[in-house]
Amino acid sequence: MKIRERGVTIGKLQPGKKNCITDVEGVMVGQITLHYPLNDNDQYVCTGVTAVLPHGRNLFREKVPAASYVINGFGKTTGLVQVEELGMIESPIMLTNTFGVPAVTHGTLEHMLRTTPEIGDTTGTVNIVVGECNDGYLNSIRALPVKPEHAIAAIENANSERTEEGAVGAGKGMVCFGYKGGVGASSRVISEEQSSKDYIIGCLVVTNFGNKDEFPFRKYGLSEIPQETKETPDGSIMIILATDAPVSDRQLKRLAKRCGIGLGRTGSHYSNGSGDIVIAFSTARTISHQSTEHVEFAHLIRDDHPLMNKLFQGAAESAEEAILNSLSQAETTKGRQERVVEGMFS
Amino acid sequence: MKIRERGVTIGKLQPGKKNCITDVEGVMVGQITLHYPLNDNDQYVCTGVTAVLPHGRNLFREKVPAASYVINGFGKTTGLVQVEELGMIESPIMLTNTFGVPAVTHGTLEHMLRTTPEIGDTTGTVNIVVGECNDGYLNSIRALPVKPEHAIAAIENANSERTEEGAVGAGKGMVCFGYKGGVGASSRVISEEQSSKDYIIGCLVVTNFGNKDEFPFRKYGLSEIPQETKETPDGSIMIILATDAPVSDRQLKRLAKRCGIGLGRTGSHYSNGSGDIVIAFSTARTISHQSTEHVEFAHLIRDDHPLMNKLFQGAAESAEEAILNSLSQAETTKGRQERVVEGMFS
Amino acid sequence: MKIRERGVTIGKLQPGKKNCITDVEGVMVGQITLHYPLNDNDQYVCTGVTAVLPHGRNLFREKVPAASYVINGFGKTTGLVQVEELGMIESPIMLTNTFGVPAVTHGTLEHMLRTTPEIGDTTGTVNIVVGECNDGYLNSIRALPVKPEHAIAAIENANSERTEEGAVGAGKGMVCFGYKGGVGASSRVISEEQSSKDYIIGCLVVTNFGNKDEFPFRKYGLSEIPQETKETPDGSIMIILATDAPVSDRQLKRLAKRCGIGLGRTGSHYSNGSGDIVIAFSTARTISHQSTEHVEFAHLIRDDHPLMNKLFQGAAESAEEAILNSLSQAETTKGRQERVVEGMFS
Amino acid sequence: MKIRERGVTIGKLQPGKKNCITDVEGVMVGQITLHYPLNDNDQYVCTGVTAVLPHGRNLFREKVPAASYVINGFGKTTGLVQVEELGMIESPIMLTNTFGVPAVTHGTLEHMLRTTPEIGDTTGTVNIVVGECNDGYLNSIRALPVKPEHAIAAIENANSERTEEGAVGAGKGMVCFGYKGGVGASSRVISEEQSSKDYIIGCLVVTNFGNKDEFPFRKYGLSEIPQETKETPDGSIMIILATDAPVSDRQLKRLAKRCGIGLGRTGSHYSNGSGDIVIAFSTARTISHQSTEHVEFAHLIRDDHPLMNKLFQGAAESAEEAILNSLSQAETTKGRQERVVEGMFS
Repeated sequence: MKIRERGVTIGKLQPGKKNCITDVEGVMVGQITLHYPLNDNDQYVCTGVTAVLPHGRNLFREKVPAASYVINGFGKTTGLVQVEELGMIESPIMLTNTFGVPAVTHGTLEHMLRTTPEIGDTTGTVNIVVGECNDGYLNSIRALPVKPEHAIAAIENANSERTEEGAVGAGKGMVCFGYKGGVGASSRVISEEQSSKDYIIGCLVVTNFGNKDEFPFRKYGLSEIPQETKETPDGSIMIILATDAPVSDRQLKRLAKRCGIGLGRTGSHYSNGSGDIVIAFSTARTISHQSTEHVEFAHLIRDDHPLMNKLFQGAAESAEEAILNSLSQAETTKGRQERVVEGMFS
Repeated sequence: MKIRERGVTIGKLQPGKKNCITDVEGVMVGQITLHYPLNDNDQYVCTGVTAVLPHGRNLFREKVPAASYVINGFGKTTGLVQVEELGMIESPIMLTNTFGVPAVTHGTLEHMLRTTPEIGDTTGTVNIVVGECNDGYLNSIRALPVKPEHAIAAIENANSERTEEGAVGAGKGMVCFGYKGGVGASSRVISEEQSSKDYIIGCLVVTNFGNKDEFPFRKYGLSEIPQETKETPDGSIMIILATDAPVSDRQLKRLAKRCGIGLGRTGSHYSNGSGDIVIAFSTARTISHQSTEHVEFAHLIRDDHPLMNKLFQGAAESAEEAILNSLSQAETTKGRQERVVEGMFS
Repeated sequence: MKIRERGVTIGKLQPGKKNCITDVEGVMVGQITLHYPLNDNDQYVCTGVTAVLPHGRNLFREKVPAASYVINGFGKTTGLVQVEELGMIESPIMLTNTFGVPAVTHGTLEHMLRTTPEIGDTTGTVNIVVGECNDGYLNSIRALPVKPEHAIAAIENANSERTEEGAVGAGKGMVCFGYKGGVGASSRVISEEQSSKDYIIGCLVVTNFGNKDEFPFRKYGLSEIPQETKETPDGSIMIILATDAPVSDRQLKRLAKRCGIGLGRTGSHYSNGSGDIVIAFSTARTISHQSTEHVEFAHLIRDDHPLMNKLFQGAAESAEEAILNSLSQAETTKGRQERVVEGMFS
Repeated sequence: MKIRERGVTIGKLQPGKKNCITDVEGVMVGQITLHYPLNDNDQYVCTGVTAVLPHGRNLFREKVPAASYVINGFGKTTGLVQVEELGMIESPIMLTNTFGVPAVTHGTLEHMLRTTPEIGDTTGTVNIVVGECNDGYLNSIRALPVKPEHAIAAIENANSERTEEGAVGAGKGMVCFGYKGGVGASSRVISEEQSSKDYIIGCLVVTNFGNKDEFPFRKYGLSEIPQETKETPDGSIMIILATDAPVSDRQLKRLAKRCGIGLGRTGSHYSNGSGDIVIAFSTARTISHQSTEHVEFAHLIRDDHPLMNKLFQGAAESAEEAILNSLSQAETTKGRQERVVEGMFS
């Protein structure tokens, strides 16, 4: 159940049909969840992979404008150097646990090589973006259970339906404010009197941040829910922001920055040990890998148009609501050392 | 009356004695307010200057570690290039209206030249930091009423008392959420079980941002206060953050970034036309302009110590409370074209 | 005489007709030079103002895409915060001495207010970009001889002819490698087999950097020219880069960065006390201040097209040659305290 | 044979004893080279791994101050987000081919987990830094020949001797200016009259950039060496900079930036498709992973001390010389599709 169904309304803009990142046309999400005991010493695999595809075609051949914004950089996300330089993304955006990053990068690379024979042969290499949070409180992260094939499977099962949320995919082992965190998604419709066109902005998060007592139950009109989780280490949040609005990489970075507003409104102070990272892309146009033209054409929203402020608001609201949706839907989960993290509502 | 006296408590940390940036020992604030009609066409001067001095001695000779963070860069703040490169501030930090920046820079330069004869003669130049918001809704900004002498006067009347807040100094003509904005200040005590030492973090803001309907009265337990201000243009906020905690320029930038949390919690989405800029400094040590030593010594808080997260929290809370203090204390003010902006509580 | 006429060829690309920034169609340069003794104590005014106009129309109403890049930030350039956020420039780009920045900002503001009555009245404020170098070795910089009217005069005498170079305008008092520095300009034609279109990239510098013995005479095929200038303090260089190639703000920053290559090739190591700053703009399109449209259209060079690498090369070559042109044309100049700085070739 | 032994002298500062990054006390370098034919279709493995260890102890427990600087970001280096946020490095710095990054990250992670049982159990995760260049012209990069165990082997064979240069380790398959590139190293002694203390700065590069005709033979007093390599794709350069000078992360970034000067002086224009990335660290102090103290002490070189400019010069000179050393020592190498790239001097 989404947080909205529990009577909590975030912000003023309307959500899209599914209240999900997949409301942005073409965006697909795929997930793989791993949850099983290991043989030794109370070890438990409690993790997974989540893939966000800006569109269902070959992303290397049809790249999308993109940007990233590092809210707090205690994180191991890979692939951002090239996103910053070129302002585009050319692979699925992958999410997993911290130590799963190399395996997921490897699996995604294999997927790209298989589907794109020209990479590394007649053309250059491919930049793969993988984000992470540390699920080591519940997950036996040292056992390195995530394998390259899990990344491939997550990509292959990607679809445009309403994304499964809560303790699934990369969110399986995550902890947020001492409650069970995980995957959350939301969206906002961006419409404006002065424009005949509606746009949509969607958000998907993996939540693994926040200390006990930081969550503002009262603000949300909720009664405080007791929890017995022991103090958890500093966590992280990965935020993926998608929009069909025609915006440049510079403008996408502006949007990405506003996700930090939503994060702050849930009670976070971007703690020292948190890797709080936003990756944003637009589906309004694609950029072909090769072209005989020396120029490409773009239409871009004017920065001073009221739609831009609405997009800012949508980024903040959808990030906040996606975080709450992760809490709303993550069920009590057990992990290593017989630890159990309770869902806020379960 | 501070917002706390109206029954609104922001966050969980305790304020310092004066709940003001001047709780950070040595920090001084000086202000000049200009408010008078011009002869022609309903024009009105409604502006001023606010000076924040990290300490009362010669700042060029005894610089302080500093950093800036641009939340949204639709602003004309000057002096940040060198702050970023060298991580220090060597002049009073000045605040005024947008078109007053050159005059205030000039006046501050004259002050520095007079008090520091070696500048531009036997040693190099001096970097002056001036921030601004656009008070053109109330103030006849095109008349350029701020003069260099106003900057000098603001510096000269600086003191360590509790700062006057509301529609004074650089805040005289500012508008915030459609209500009268202005100068606000606050502070937080940073203490921690694992450390025997208390620190303090203080904040001073000039608020000129936000649209009608964005302010979350309910969240603050306030009843909605009607207002008749016409739609105002995108504004800005200047945030000055001071601490006596021993932190490096890198760490000061981390603190500065957390002020954006406080801003977001008041309802802002960092709108396109807003220049939302944070300047942070530490008084824990000074860096002499010249030295015969080739190294200097610093002690710095460990990033992973719980005090750092407390400082993050203090930065967010004090920024939010300083904004509310500006609203709480700014009285109804009239300006050009017979415009009146009402104080939220007056 | 340009350095090329002395037999020194920089790089491989061809210069434009005037080998000047004004080879980029529409770009105009205006300069004011101040050189006279003051009454007291061997003081001397030896400074000026240089204005670079991306086009001859109202820049606020027709902005140009722009970016900046800070090679080394020991500098007091103003206006970059907004250039970074919005990726455009909306005023003449002004250059002067360090302490002239407030006066020149003020004068440029007055010019913009006079020619654009809507600024600060029915629309917002204007962002003014002013760069500087410290000419205090020759110029009595503490006397603050540059006044707002000098900025206005420089703007008003701007033209598209070949720019006067050497000890003129903002370059009047500058010192470079211990020789007389000043204003230099150059350009490169960017053509490419795979493209039917030629572009041009032009550069204007004010040179005030470098220590004795750093200049590589031999590399340039020049015989070493002795000099008797005493050790001068760390200086700076301002680099203005213009192109008619259709490039975005992100791409302009990439171009700006390559100017550091040219600077490094002249012998500089970007010394600590140097403010080495590049401001780059494209004249390929303008962005109107206001529009009823919610989107704007842009055509942009593909990053992977060979033209982009040619533009990179052009940025590096034209920056290097502009520096040499400043040295080639700056004549021996006297200043305060009976100091004389000799021209490299005079 | 180093380039200096061929009579080419770069810059003015003196190299250290080994003219190698290992002149910085404690720094160790380990390498693994892979070179063998594959069974099918003229495929060839021609690649490797190079590890740079700031010191020989556990880097997670004793971190070093660090910074990175992205000259041009068309690259897939991983680990920089956290280096930027925290200003330190806590693992070996690994270099390999582009598609080897996940395997090398994985192997390095396994090494860190094995030697540091507390990671991911009682303490947090570890940030691993891996840089890369694309050796796909010679190496069958799509075959993914680099495995985790190669990373571990490179770390384990690390030593403080003069580093083997040329077509070895990560440099095995690289191409530079159409000639055989590879690993190069150099160093500079930083001494200064006003300081009784000498420091050293060392550099290690993997060179894979530059087009035919860009290399300035004449400038280096070399006769042009013909080559028959076909046009190669845009490449990259990884630059590792080490110093025993006591500098902060901010200052390390300043040093890193100056490596771009050295790169530019060899003829590069930082081409579009090049990932030109610098990672810099100081061995002057270590930062323990955990501490009961809430502060740490640092002594830091004053930015305005002449030693800082010498360090800048040292960074530029050692980067340039390391590049030339890679060319000087890389022998003719054959790779996939019967391609042969000739050494410049072999």
